[in-house]
Amino acid sequence: MKKQVTIKDIAKLAGVSVATVSRVINGNGRYSKDTEERVLRIIKEHNYSPNMLGKGLRTNKTNTIGIVVPDITNEFFARIIQEVEKNLFRAGYTTLVCNTSENPELEKRYLEVLNLNRVSGTIYIAGDTRVKHEEPRGIPAVYIDRWPSTTRKDIVFIESDNFEGGRLAAQEMLKCGCRRIIFLTDERRTSAHQSRCEGYIRAHREFGVVPDERFIIGLSEISFDAAYNEVIRLIDNNVKFDGIFASTDWLALGSLVALESRGIKVPEQVKIVGFDNISISKHCSTPITTINQNVTQMGELAVDLLLKLIDGKEIDKKYYVLPVELVKRSTT
Amino acid sequence: MKKQVTIKDIAKLAGVSVATVSRVINGNGRYSKDTEERVLRIIKEHNYSPNMLGKGLRTNKTNTIGIVVPDITNEFFARIIQEVEKNLFRAGYTTLVCNTSENPELEKRYLEVLNLNRVSGTIYIAGDTRVKHEEPRGIPAVYIDRWPSTTRKDIVFIESDNFEGGRLAAQEMLKCGCRRIIFLTDERRTSAHQSRCEGYIRAHREFGVVPDERFIIGLSEISFDAAYNEVIRLIDNNVKFDGIFASTDWLALGSLVALESRGIKVPEQVKIVGFDNISISKHCSTPITTINQNVTQMGELAVDLLLKLIDGKEIDKKYYVLPVELVKRSTT
Repeated sequence: MKKQVTIKDIAKLAGVSVATVSRVINGNGRYSKDTEERVLRIIKEHNYSPNMLGKGLRTNKTNTIGIVVPDITNEFFARIIQEVEKNLFRAGYTTLVCNTSENPELEKRYLEVLNLNRVSGTIYIAGDTRVKHEEPRGIPAVYIDRWPSTTRKDIVFIESDNFEGGRLAAQEMLKCGCRRIIFLTDERRTSAHQSRCEGYIRAHREFGVVPDERFIIGLSEISFDAAYNEVIRLIDNNVKFDGIFASTDWLALGSLVALESRGIKVPEQVKIVGFDNISISKHCSTPITTINQNVTQMGELAVDLLLKLIDGKEIDKKYYVLPVELVKRSTT
Repeated sequence: MKKQVTIKDIAKLAGVSVATVSRVINGNGRYSKDTEERVLRIIKEHNYSPNMLGKGLRTNKTNTIGIVVPDITNEFFARIIQEVEKNLFRAGYTTLVCNTSENPELEKRYLEVLNLNRVSGTIYIAGDTRVKHEEPRGIPAVYIDRWPSTTRKDIVFIESDNFEGGRLAAQEMLKCGCRRIIFLTDERRTSAHQSRCEGYIRAHREFGVVPDERFIIGLSEISFDAAYNEVIRLIDNNVKFDGIFASTDWLALGSLVALESRGIKVPEQVKIVGFDNISISKHCSTPITTINQNVTQMGELAVDLLLKLIDGKEIDKKYYVLPVELVKRSTT
């Protein structure tokens, strides 16, 4: 059986990266006229077609990427997946999504499944920090959002500026006069949530306020219900607070609904800031002020870096922090 | 290497189905005391552990199920996936999710990828009807929501009662006095949307109203933006209408935001009914009346049927219609 020409072969023959071949195929800039001509000539000479993937698969190359994600029902993660898939598809790769439902046991199994399925690479979006990541059999990996549990120092990691996000969120409420701001976060203290917490504390110090440690509340589950129940509990226990910084928009919405159900006016009596800027924060009953994460940039960058790793290229810069911004709406 | 005992082996030895072994392991009813004792004894004798999946994989059994889905950023599909995964995990299977972004080319590739990865079975949630489904190499398959393009008559298919859903939606608005009801639907006329359309027409006839054919509008994309733009276009073209039946909640929300942006009062001037009952329909600015689909039952049933197929069991009943219900909120 004749060996199928792959995008990697084309890249090698043209002396460019897989990412560059992909860009030429899709005609989206960032390469010289010379490169374009050379790549297109080699593609033609070798009769390469990105649509040949199916056949390429049978030659023991999977051209498949695995994405591990904690919760696809959260639009924030679903949108990153969508971006990643779109960009990988353009480069001739298909994507297998593994949803762990925040279950570390399931995440371990998925690592084995992906390994066994000979994926060309993996992207971990907010992987569970209780699961060891040692990149078995040298499958290239890019990590997004949560720093994984690994002894390796040279992993490729992309995150939003979570510290700045936490700082902006708390600043917004402190500026409005709030002085008793609850921080609803993940009890597992993942790197992303920890950084948001540090930003929240920094903002308080900048305003000469010492945050009450009891106001930093770790939830066992990151969901609408968990936040709703916690805020009801706080109200019923007569805890006095005038702001809630919720470390996801779903937590912010749960808080909002709990406050409104008890007749507490938002933003007059309690202000709320969320995180992620998912659709529901824009369209809910009282549109929620939130911190926007740039999922488009995250997805593009993750694919670009992963293709370089698959290509065997050296990546100088391995740690990326993407800017965030406050989106002011009606809860502050 | 000693062959790993699988859930299938246990089922065979105990003379029961894989689904039953799974239920015994998870202790969730529906089996006799005798069956339970026999299954547990065989599990113990053969030192079987559902956690051994990883090792089982290396014995050329993947214990992996592929799910193909058109759009994971739509919570409706994400929730079905979550239910399916939860139930498959209990049965010792992991799940690979393939998101096609409604791209038939990508769906074709995924069929090849899943085939190549030797999945034990596949579940197609609203697969693209332009893609031929002939179950290559006899991998068991269960179809949800959209009837696939196949010459086979004996496929296993689960859907909500879309006809009744369309009827309930239109009835609700007709009862309120609406006589000019726009139906926003999928221009591809998938089976689910077609049935909803027929229900919409039936309700009109029951009220002695002849629906205007121009009011049945097929959108090229099922998204917030597509509905928003269409409703703005209708308003700008002075089309007179007093109701919108949107065949997904995202279309309903896009319609609602378009109407509100032009100062048209909902439900006073125009009423809206959506479909799916996703979170955003409950929590948006004007909570949307919608048709609830039972995703929990859908996910459970799909897994139960797929495990039977994998087990080589005859399935007498192959077509399932799950009941829907109207959830009345503030847009009617």
